[in-house]
Amino acid sequence: MKTEIIAVGSELLTPDFQDTNSLFLTERLNSVGLDVAFKTIVGDDEGDLARVIRTALGRSRLILLMGGLGPTEDDRTRETLAKVLGARLIFKAAILRHIRARFRRRGLDMPATNRKQCYAIEGAEVLANPHGTAPGLWLERGKNRLAVLPGPPRELRPMVENHVLPRLAALGRGRMVRRTIRLTGIGESLMESLIKPVYASVPKAVRVTTLAAPGDLAITLTYRGPASLSEAQAVIEGLESALLKALRRWVYSRNGEGLEAVVGALLKKEGRTVACAESCTGGLVGHRLTAVPGSSAYFLESAVVYGNAAKVRRLGVPPALIDKHGAVSAAVARAMAAGVRSTAGADFGLAVTGIAGPDGGTARKPVGLVYTALAHAGGVAVRRDIFYGGRAMVRFQASQKALDVLRRFLLKADMD
Amino acid sequence: MKTEIIAVGSELLTPDFQDTNSLFLTERLNSVGLDVAFKTIVGDDEGDLARVIRTALGRSRLILLMGGLGPTEDDRTRETLAKVLGARLIFKAAILRHIRARFRRRGLDMPATNRKQCYAIEGAEVLANPHGTAPGLWLERGKNRLAVLPGPPRELRPMVENHVLPRLAALGRGRMVRRTIRLTGIGESLMESLIKPVYASVPKAVRVTTLAAPGDLAITLTYRGPASLSEAQAVIEGLESALLKALRRWVYSRNGEGLEAVVGALLKKEGRTVACAESCTGGLVGHRLTAVPGSSAYFLESAVVYGNAAKVRRLGVPPALIDKHGAVSAAVARAMAAGVRSTAGADFGLAVTGIAGPDGGTARKPVGLVYTALAHAGGVAVRRDIFYGGRAMVRFQASQKALDVLRRFLLKADMD
Repeated sequence: MKTEIIAVGSELLTPDFQDTNSLFLTERLNSVGLDVAFKTIVGDDEGDLARVIRTALGRSRLILLMGGLGPTEDDRTRETLAKVLGARLIFKAAILRHIRARFRRRGLDMPATNRKQCYAIEGAEVLANPHGTAPGLWLERGKNRLAVLPGPPRELRPMVENHVLPRLAALGRGRMVRRTIRLTGIGESLMESLIKPVYASVPKAVRVTTLAAPGDLAITLTYRGPASLSEAQAVIEGLESALLKALRRWVYSRNGEGLEAVVGALLKKEGRTVACAESCTGGLVGHRLTAVPGSSAYFLESAVVYGNAAKVRRLGVPPALIDKHGAVSAAVARAMAAGVRSTAGADFGLAVTGIAGPDGGTARKPVGLVYTALAHAGGVAVRRDIFYGGRAMVRFQASQKALDVLRRFLLKADMD
Repeated sequence: MKTEIIAVGSELLTPDFQDTNSLFLTERLNSVGLDVAFKTIVGDDEGDLARVIRTALGRSRLILLMGGLGPTEDDRTRETLAKVLGARLIFKAAILRHIRARFRRRGLDMPATNRKQCYAIEGAEVLANPHGTAPGLWLERGKNRLAVLPGPPRELRPMVENHVLPRLAALGRGRMVRRTIRLTGIGESLMESLIKPVYASVPKAVRVTTLAAPGDLAITLTYRGPASLSEAQAVIEGLESALLKALRRWVYSRNGEGLEAVVGALLKKEGRTVACAESCTGGLVGHRLTAVPGSSAYFLESAVVYGNAAKVRRLGVPPALIDKHGAVSAAVARAMAAGVRSTAGADFGLAVTGIAGPDGGTARKPVGLVYTALAHAGGVAVRRDIFYGGRAMVRFQASQKALDVLRRFLLKADMD
């Protein structure tokens, strides 16, 4: 069964916005054994949208249509689909009650513009939307199955989980098992050359895909075929072992988890706490560590000491050290890590100082230079890296390195 | 002239990869007055690719086809397009010489697999690729114009700049002027109902698109037509004025800039400094403020005081205050803002404390409850909000509110 995802919205045809819902949708479709054959992105123009829907009805059995269900003038998905199908739009009092109740809970009257969301296509099942005003629709027309879904992820995701997946599970064929390992501290070319021998042993039913970002690599193994669950898992695990043999020193996650979650789980398991001292990352290390629910068990604080005065006052970094070596130096990184560890009373002090750019670099201290220091009961370790890329990329890589330094220490692995 | 971008590659139909080339392409197309009407993503399956190409030939005058030009078995774009067009593939000795020379420079022989890249579609112009082996193609068939381009960005981008844009400039008609205003503190429905009267006065040549995320809304006006630059700008500015009249109290940016950049520019202009005290945002406010190059001129530090001990020790929040009101309270938010202002010696102290979830909420203090406080020379202002959504969404909205509170104060606007 060919499956197609259609994302509707003129903003998705500008240089500034991208459809990301389809990544979530694809993952969920894959989980019930359905592959995506086509993704189409179209704007709010009714003629274009009608064409796209007609094309999809001709080539795809399952169509997931997202976006354009809002209350505004340019939200035309419901109306256009009805026209293409030659179906009427029917007013649903239950939807009106739901929308009115949502506004009433916030002490507001429903604006008249929301009234258009109260119409459903004739013959469609209405999919409840507890997180927004626009309900979804499920239609079965001849050979086609269509889901019409709201664009905002917080509305889309629960609707897919609760209403769409149960309907799709019956349609999926075959089994899909997927495993993602994630790596940091290695470049894409080196990774490729190290795993090249493994590619030769990959069976036809498995796809190997790699994703590389500076500071973060991922390899995904996907089995799709008729095998039993345990057989499929055995195939994936055999390949995973071969990959780990070649890459183990850089692998931080074998289940797709992010580095902040991995570090958090290690700290929690060991019952230890961390405090951070951040300069160039500006709070990103703390933000990532606290993105994990329950992180208050091990994360005490982060001192984002951007200016030199803050480094001195908050962490006791000696001004003479900054004068002599500069704020971006091994000596200051060490003093920041030791300072935040002792002032916060944490088991670990994790410090980052560097030059994120675009300005501030010199020949001896170029943009991208980052020092990462880890203070622990036995002393302070420091490392020096030069990261490439723009400001955001340097800051991400610096945060990734800091988290990885702590991870390696917790695993008693070498500081690479 | 309808324009369509087609990205070819099975990895683009997995949950892990996304076509990003089309954002670059769209920006370049827009620069010569061409809008994108459709984006299509298709895998390596020859039948699917052929269907997609046929559909595009029927609905789009200009087609940009990217990817699938590599040397491997599953790269079939060239061959499939030739079949659909009913055109022969012709061996080009010049391409062979180029590819051989590339390998020779690295001391290698050309692998036999690269030979398939030496074929061009009959009647096509060959577009040189100095950064890779696969040349591009430019075809004109009846009403259709097609560019066939390599997928890797380092190969695609120079080819677009040097060979495709000059050919497109002749096709683009009219002028494009775009303006984006951004808003915070207002919901989508209210915004929509306030600007509804403006829609009636929008001329045909202008598109109005809106984009809504929790805590951040954008309205983009795009003029496309035959007017002169100054006429087009006048049309856009007239509409912008009408929008601003209805929405001014929520508009933070009239040129698409993010809130952190807007706040940074205001601080810089006034020669004032800010220090933050963050609990639930975990460092996000500092990270956003320091994402702006040159932010060291006004951003001193952020105390990410996640635990209560840190709130007391770093900022002098009285323990009795936390005991009496809880860490998430107006009183503690005030004490955090005042504490960071005085300990950091900043003009402004900006504090956030809240319950990001998923756990930790109670009936009186639900998940999403956030207090934002601003300490300044004249006192401390505090506000209370309840944000909806998951952990990441609550944290983003909290950071947005904190930045907006500072922006409004700097503009001497009301705290809304």
